[in-house]
Amino acid sequence: MSTIREYIASNAEMVEAALIQALPAQWNVPASLRESMNYSLMAGGKRLRPILVLAAAEALGGSQAAALPVALAIEMVHTYSLIHDDLPAMDDDDYRRGKLTNHKVYGEAMAILAGDALLTHSFYSITQAHKVHGIPAERVLAITEELAAYAGARGMVGGQAADMLGEQGLTKLEELEFIHLHKTSDLIVFSLRAGAHIAGATTGQLAALSEFGNAIGLAFQIQDDILDIIGDETKLGKPVKSDEKQQKVTYPYFIGLEASEMKVKELTEQAKKALLQGGFKNPERLFQLADYLMQRDH
Amino acid sequence: MSTIREYIASNAEMVEAALIQALPAQWNVPASLRESMNYSLMAGGKRLRPILVLAAAEALGGSQAAALPVALAIEMVHTYSLIHDDLPAMDDDDYRRGKLTNHKVYGEAMAILAGDALLTHSFYSITQAHKVHGIPAERVLAITEELAAYAGARGMVGGQAADMLGEQGLTKLEELEFIHLHKTSDLIVFSLRAGAHIAGATTGQLAALSEFGNAIGLAFQIQDDILDIIGDETKLGKPVKSDEKQQKVTYPYFIGLEASEMKVKELTEQAKKALLQGGFKNPERLFQLADYLMQRDH
Repeated sequence: MSTIREYIASNAEMVEAALIQALPAQWNVPASLRESMNYSLMAGGKRLRPILVLAAAEALGGSQAAALPVALAIEMVHTYSLIHDDLPAMDDDDYRRGKLTNHKVYGEAMAILAGDALLTHSFYSITQAHKVHGIPAERVLAITEELAAYAGARGMVGGQAADMLGEQGLTKLEELEFIHLHKTSDLIVFSLRAGAHIAGATTGQLAALSEFGNAIGLAFQIQDDILDIIGDETKLGKPVKSDEKQQKVTYPYFIGLEASEMKVKELTEQAKKALLQGGFKNPERLFQLADYLMQRDH
Repeated sequence: MSTIREYIASNAEMVEAALIQALPAQWNVPASLRESMNYSLMAGGKRLRPILVLAAAEALGGSQAAALPVALAIEMVHTYSLIHDDLPAMDDDDYRRGKLTNHKVYGEAMAILAGDALLTHSFYSITQAHKVHGIPAERVLAITEELAAYAGARGMVGGQAADMLGEQGLTKLEELEFIHLHKTSDLIVFSLRAGAHIAGATTGQLAALSEFGNAIGLAFQIQDDILDIIGDETKLGKPVKSDEKQQKVTYPYFIGLEASEMKVKELTEQAKKALLQGGFKNPERLFQLADYLMQRDH
């Protein structure tokens, strides 16, 4: 069995090779819109969410090829959310992962449209799991419904709205957890459930994956907050202590650095325990991914 | 049989009553995000696209109730596109239909998010045609795929990008028709096809509706251009000659007012002729809608 780093690297490579072709070449799309969409899709990143889709499908013995359109879809949704978050009216960021943000290269109007088009195309991609790979329409429609719920007003967009509205200052840890839950965990939970739906998961397996996803999602976000304080700038691709400079309220702000590190460990154990339920066939990669995320340094 | 005006009024009323409840009340959505979404959903408009969904389902003898979630979805997509089009980085409009635009009331960031959430929720709404009304999953998935294609990079968003890129000045009628086709006709064609899918349309019926939709879509847009020159400001809800003042290139600009009026008539006849194909059960409302759109004064 390859190491988890090799597993991540080879899957990220497969996802990237497919992403660049996700918008059919024969479609008549204005050239600069296509370019703007591809610029952000190809701007790097860990490809964590698509890898979770693939690992969840694998955990149930499902087909990787059939899970790929859904893996691409979630990366499109993640990418659109970053493009819109970076806009001047939102976080007003000029750089992401060391590269100019979309609107700095293509202008604000095109960045808004590229985000809109990526979000729309994510739903197209999902339908191909049925059309090209023959996954039953009921399962693919369940994935469609869940993406719309987890990424929409009660999910990721709701979390982003709460984050913006709270920028004047959060006063409770629960408010910060609400934001993390929806801005980060919702898409992670969706990724796992979507991969499982492809393989025909039971209700019990879906519940176990939701619990796993909520725990690693929160751990992931707290680890981000920690790395922002103690991380290595060259590995992170952004200045450390940037949150602190922006007076952004983070997990360590509320409970301190040491307790935050402890919380990441606890959540990871909780996640792995949830996975013991559900009778998964090949859950090894999910276990390894939980540990990997806790130990990452960027 | 009621008049076409009564048909439009009663269906618009039904659509509006359902739209206000489209985002489930029990969902935990930040209050101002919900408010911002509902503000634009409820800001009036002809409700033309949802009415086309219902009329197309009726043309095939299909269920109106089952078509309603799809009718709501298309109005959400239309509404999100208006919110984003009005943003300062795009058309920078302060008023639409006599009301302040979304970002003038809720700020730019919330307007971007409200648009994103409406687009996302449109796909949720479509899935309810299967989940609540029992339309076969294959049909509902076909609608999902078509919405993503007609509203995305090769459809409506592509048309909007081409419009923006062409603002320096279009030189050919074909360029203007490309923009009209994608900014306007694509969603009209989708509306008709989606209503037909609900009722289990044949390939021939779908093709006839596409031809009908492309013709009335272009006629609709040319009529808009004409009304902008000769219309009644109070009925239009915006100053006449506003396109001219903005030096916007329109159909009358290329071929003159009289030839534009002739073109609208021709396209309407062409549309009605297309409908004679396909053996529709109750196509009366579609015929009446084509005539109504040509004669409208706002």
